Amino acid sequence: MAEVDEVRRARVALTMLAEPGTRAVHRLVARHGPAVALAMAMAGDLPDKETRDAVAARLAAGDPRPAAEAALATGDRLGARLVVPEDDEWPAQVSCLEWAFIPGADRRVDKEMAPPLCFWVRGEWPLAEAFERSVAIVGARAATQYGEHVATDLAYGLAEREWTVVSGGAFGIDAAAHRGALAAGGLTIAVLACGIDRVYPVAHTALFDRILETGLLVTEWPPGADPLRPRFLIRNRVIAAATRGTVLVEAAARSGATQTMRRALAVDRPAMVVPGPVTSAMSVGCHEMLRHESARLVASAAHVLEEVGRIGADLAPTPQGPEHPRDQLDDQAAFVLESIPRRGAVNPDALAVSAGVDIRTVLRKLTLLETLGFVVRRAGGYALAPPPRRPAEGDTS
Amino acid sequence: MAEVDEVRRARVALTMLAEPGTRAVHRLVARHGPAVALAMAMAGDLPDKETRDAVAARLAAGDPRPAAEAALATGDRLGARLVVPEDDEWPAQVSCLEWAFIPGADRRVDKEMAPPLCFWVRGEWPLAEAFERSVAIVGARAATQYGEHVATDLAYGLAEREWTVVSGGAFGIDAAAHRGALAAGGLTIAVLACGIDRVYPVAHTALFDRILETGLLVTEWPPGADPLRPRFLIRNRVIAAATRGTVLVEAAARSGATQTMRRALAVDRPAMVVPGPVTSAMSVGCHEMLRHESARLVASAAHVLEEVGRIGADLAPTPQGPEHPRDQLDDQAAFVLESIPRRGAVNPDALAVSAGVDIRTVLRKLTLLETLGFVVRRAGGYALAPPPRRPAEGDTS
Repeated sequence: MAEVDEVRRARVALTMLAEPGTRAVHRLVARHGPAVALAMAMAGDLPDKETRDAVAARLAAGDPRPAAEAALATGDRLGARLVVPEDDEWPAQVSCLEWAFIPGADRRVDKEMAPPLCFWVRGEWPLAEAFERSVAIVGARAATQYGEHVATDLAYGLAEREWTVVSGGAFGIDAAAHRGALAAGGLTIAVLACGIDRVYPVAHTALFDRILETGLLVTEWPPGADPLRPRFLIRNRVIAAATRGTVLVEAAARSGATQTMRRALAVDRPAMVVPGPVTSAMSVGCHEMLRHESARLVASAAHVLEEVGRIGADLAPTPQGPEHPRDQLDDQAAFVLESIPRRGAVNPDALAVSAGVDIRTVLRKLTLLETLGFVVRRAGGYALAPPPRRPAEGDTS
Repeated sequence: MAEVDEVRRARVALTMLAEPGTRAVHRLVARHGPAVALAMAMAGDLPDKETRDAVAARLAAGDPRPAAEAALATGDRLGARLVVPEDDEWPAQVSCLEWAFIPGADRRVDKEMAPPLCFWVRGEWPLAEAFERSVAIVGARAATQYGEHVATDLAYGLAEREWTVVSGGAFGIDAAAHRGALAAGGLTIAVLACGIDRVYPVAHTALFDRILETGLLVTEWPPGADPLRPRFLIRNRVIAAATRGTVLVEAAARSGATQTMRRALAVDRPAMVVPGPVTSAMSVGCHEMLRHESARLVASAAHVLEEVGRIGADLAPTPQGPEHPRDQLDDQAAFVLESIPRRGAVNPDALAVSAGVDIRTVLRKLTLLETLGFVVRRAGGYALAPPPRRPAEGDTS
């Protein structure tokens, strides 16, 4: 029990050392477990510059463990629980963020795409169960009447069919989606980009209270964390990864909402888009998405269910991580893996040649393959991990 | 000159014996020329039941040649000219209807997809030149204000950039498109589904007069022909084939306008669709098109030009028929052609086996290949035509 508490405290402390979604920290935890990872960070015993850089600034401010203890106490007082991958109610599907790849995205975005270390949760439903049959509805804060009407209608239709409606609790489309689900007596989840003790926007105090009556408020950030702008993008990956698909209702050109959609595409979830009048600035982002990305046009809850139903048939009722993780590797990782000889080790340079993949990518993919338990590092380079393999995601499933 | 007149009269007479677009009649004309084809029909000397059936009913009503003469006189009196494939101003791109194939379409539609035998034209512009840089804008008669606004706007934008706007002269989207082009001082063409002497709808008398001042009225039907319902579908194939692409602005579910779009896809032209509010019944057909067909979402004239510009780069300025007709054969016809031995003849049954295509299709494709001059009929079956081949389309280019 003391050990379990140590794991939980370590996870919280780590979210205080680096923003959730930081790849380097996730890698460290995947390899060594949260407690050892935190100890390594505290001792300055970190494997590479990227990891050192990720935690350096906040580590200089002092030991995060007392703050983590305090956060857990605050959580308790607020009626919020900490959910970690070691818990039964952990939504295992978020581990798909391991494989997420956003084509053309810059490095900063890539770094954000690691699975969460923990969730703070308010509300009665077990988290995994609440996310099991869920669809995200996202869109513009400055939504039009049309957009809010459609979001409410879609959410109502989905909630009526017992699907959870997930959104970000913001003004505009988010609020309309939550309200539509509530109106149907359905389950709705607001995934926040700040501490669970913060109500942001403040005008949504009553809405959040209503959501809490039957649904959930969820966040990766510890109590006290402010809703900083970059956190919304980081949060969006969870909305994309935890649900069966994401629907974009209204978006101006190049808006934050289209970023969530790119994350949905990156984790291979259906990215659905509601069109609107071409005369409306709030539909420009939607139409661009439909013109240039592999997003599907949807005009009704039935269309949405057609998309997520398909995925639903492929996934187990409660996804516990992929059954055939090898099939879920991206092409390059698969090439690298296939190019490793059955016996003996091979060095990355030789792999680059045999896999036909550049050396930097080979190194990146080897790190991924090692994290997933497919390969092990040896004196002579990398070798296939001995079967039977450990369950794929290590600590995150 | 007498011979030319005979060809023209024969073409008109043939459109009186069978509706324009009848494949059997087109085949007959492609093989024997219009004058001989008409003589064969008059003599009852027709190659197959399909061709006999196509002309039987109206042939029983008597010799069509006097009526054709009268139609030409009426045309003269109305200031309408007859344009035939033998003329310089013939828009050669309509010969793409030879290869048109609508997946899943019923036999009746397939039969409608032959190139026109002639056009009746009112207006100053040479026909081919007017269609050279042209885009069709089609849509619902019962259009909404939104739809009419968008159609006008698109047409204005295209006309401003010196693109011809082609439509069907109907209420709603068609009229809005013509008006938008006129407002920009541009060229617009109304392709009618009745005689050039008929104003349909009557309420568009003033609109048609305005179109005539700078643009064209065009039809395949001789003076006096009524705007019968099935003629609109027949007419639509010309709108699709004569233009560089078709834009659908508003359409109810399963509407006639979506049929024009399927024809655009069948002749490999960009099929573009303007979305609208999902709450509008008049956009349901558009959204279905975007969900289920390979149509492209467009929201502005710039988007449309992006689509048709691409095609423009591939086509010669005045398309005179494909340069490599073999590349333009459909898959099945290509298989049949590739399966014919370099030397000697082969019978259709053997071809069906070697091409892996059912015998009925083999026979259909052989007829097409013969018409196009790729194969010749011999005692032992079909053989490759001796090079150099005649120009592909025979009488239609």
